[in-house]
Amino acid sequence: MTFERPVRIRFSHCDPAGIVFFPQYLVMTNALVEDWFNESLGVDYGAMIRTRRMGLPIVKLECSFSKPSQMGDTVTLSLDLLRVGRRSIAIRIAGHAGGETRFDAQQVLVTTSLETGASIDIPGDIRAALARFAPERAVNTQETQS
Amino acid sequence: MTFERPVRIRFSHCDPAGIVFFPQYLVMTNALVEDWFNESLGVDYGAMIRTRRMGLPIVKLECSFSKPSQMGDTVTLSLDLLRVGRRSIAIRIAGHAGGETRFDAQQVLVTTSLETGASIDIPGDIRAALARFAPERAVNTQETQS
Amino acid sequence: MTFERPVRIRFSHCDPAGIVFFPQYLVMTNALVEDWFNESLGVDYGAMIRTRRMGLPIVKLECSFSKPSQMGDTVTLSLDLLRVGRRSIAIRIAGHAGGETRFDAQQVLVTTSLETGASIDIPGDIRAALARFAPERAVNTQETQS
Amino acid sequence: MTFERPVRIRFSHCDPAGIVFFPQYLVMTNALVEDWFNESLGVDYGAMIRTRRMGLPIVKLECSFSKPSQMGDTVTLSLDLLRVGRRSIAIRIAGHAGGETRFDAQQVLVTTSLETGASIDIPGDIRAALARFAPERAVNTQETQS
Repeated sequence: MTFERPVRIRFSHCDPAGIVFFPQYLVMTNALVEDWFNESLGVDYGAMIRTRRMGLPIVKLECSFSKPSQMGDTVTLSLDLLRVGRRSIAIRIAGHAGGETRFDAQQVLVTTSLETGASIDIPGDIRAALARFAPERAVNTQETQS
Repeated sequence: MTFERPVRIRFSHCDPAGIVFFPQYLVMTNALVEDWFNESLGVDYGAMIRTRRMGLPIVKLECSFSKPSQMGDTVTLSLDLLRVGRRSIAIRIAGHAGGETRFDAQQVLVTTSLETGASIDIPGDIRAALARFAPERAVNTQETQS
Repeated sequence: MTFERPVRIRFSHCDPAGIVFFPQYLVMTNALVEDWFNESLGVDYGAMIRTRRMGLPIVKLECSFSKPSQMGDTVTLSLDLLRVGRRSIAIRIAGHAGGETRFDAQQVLVTTSLETGASIDIPGDIRAALARFAPERAVNTQETQS
Repeated sequence: MTFERPVRIRFSHCDPAGIVFFPQYLVMTNALVEDWFNESLGVDYGAMIRTRRMGLPIVKLECSFSKPSQMGDTVTLSLDLLRVGRRSIAIRIAGHAGGETRFDAQQVLVTTSLETGASIDIPGDIRAALARFAPERAVNTQETQS
């Protein structure tokens, strides 16, 4: 399954060259993960941070930026689940507009206690939600990332 | 008339206190003006910047921040037109959630040539769109702001 | 006394018009308050947030933006203490470059518990440091802001 | 040669987990490239963008984030030149603090006309400056990146 959401490119995303300043793409991918949790996985992201005190810091990022995006463009962001480890997930988030790939990122996110800063096992409810989202990806219960 | 849009408070909007970092509210108000132009006034904001080379820099801002907003909150942003001058408009943008006012801002924006950096008269089509949006506010053709 | 620091305008501060995107000025004012605490008042701002769990959210902001700043400009930010209340301080932060005022802001900041979100009296050590910084401003122990 | 600059971690860099929000690291790397051009290569970055109308968009990014940084930390950013192509350069930027690596990034940047959006050959003065910075890296005049 792929989770998709459109994002309109804003004035505030763009740099003096008139195109998206690349860290803003990564802010967008962070928001997409929030939407994915809230709207697709059924896990309340805000409550996860505030009440459960669990976060998803990134440990690895690879990204290619193939075409610039301009203010007013609508970029469709798509998220795929690549791997589920014991304490991490690997996802791919790409942005497309006008029939072009604008960027293509792979990210490894680690389930982490916000109290201790240490990684923790993916909680059962989240693991189950990931299995529903991508059954073929979520069977691996071995750690893929330290 | 009032123009309204909901905004979901994101992880990226929030600070180590867990609440919206106040400059992020102002990024949101900028995006609301874009939406207002595109969706209500019928003026393509991106084309205005890129093709017409006209911008709307702010010259005056007054804002009170009455209650904090947290990640996951949905804040309804509302925009009212207060005054239309020869080369400027005054707007009020407030944010409400959970029956509370979160912030309340007044802004003066000046129509400006992006080629010269100088203020320019509000173009006729934008003046007409403002008059349709708030007929009672748009009759004033005297400069309210240098 | 006035606390001053130079800031170089960065690519990341600027918008498609090639000038500072105004919320970025407010990010700069927040950093100036940090520097003022750390370097002038002798209060460790990071420890204040992390260990003491006290923050300084803004409740009131007035700002005029008189001239744009461009990438590469060095803007001198200056901070003056206007008033000290029981649970708040009022400051003025202006930015100057090339003999011009670029922006001029007044802000009211409230000493707040990050545990409860409620305002708290200004701690004694901070009050004393404010008195050393601006003896003539810090005598007022009456609340100026709820 | 390695180009280094310290960066103090600010409140505005940090997220509700109290640590640097990862896109902010990438904003810092962009500022480091500016400083490198201005202070080490002797190329005025602001004038390059504004007058020469040449930019350095990123086409490839790989980054690992090994330890979080907190508000108040001073992170030393270091930049090394990895490769010089005909129309691109590859750099490595790492952040260290407290004897730890906080992040380690490789980036490919492409010299681009801001008028056309197309890649252009690295101008002679910049190529010469790169050769002075890292003679052993700058001999390759073959394109390493499209």
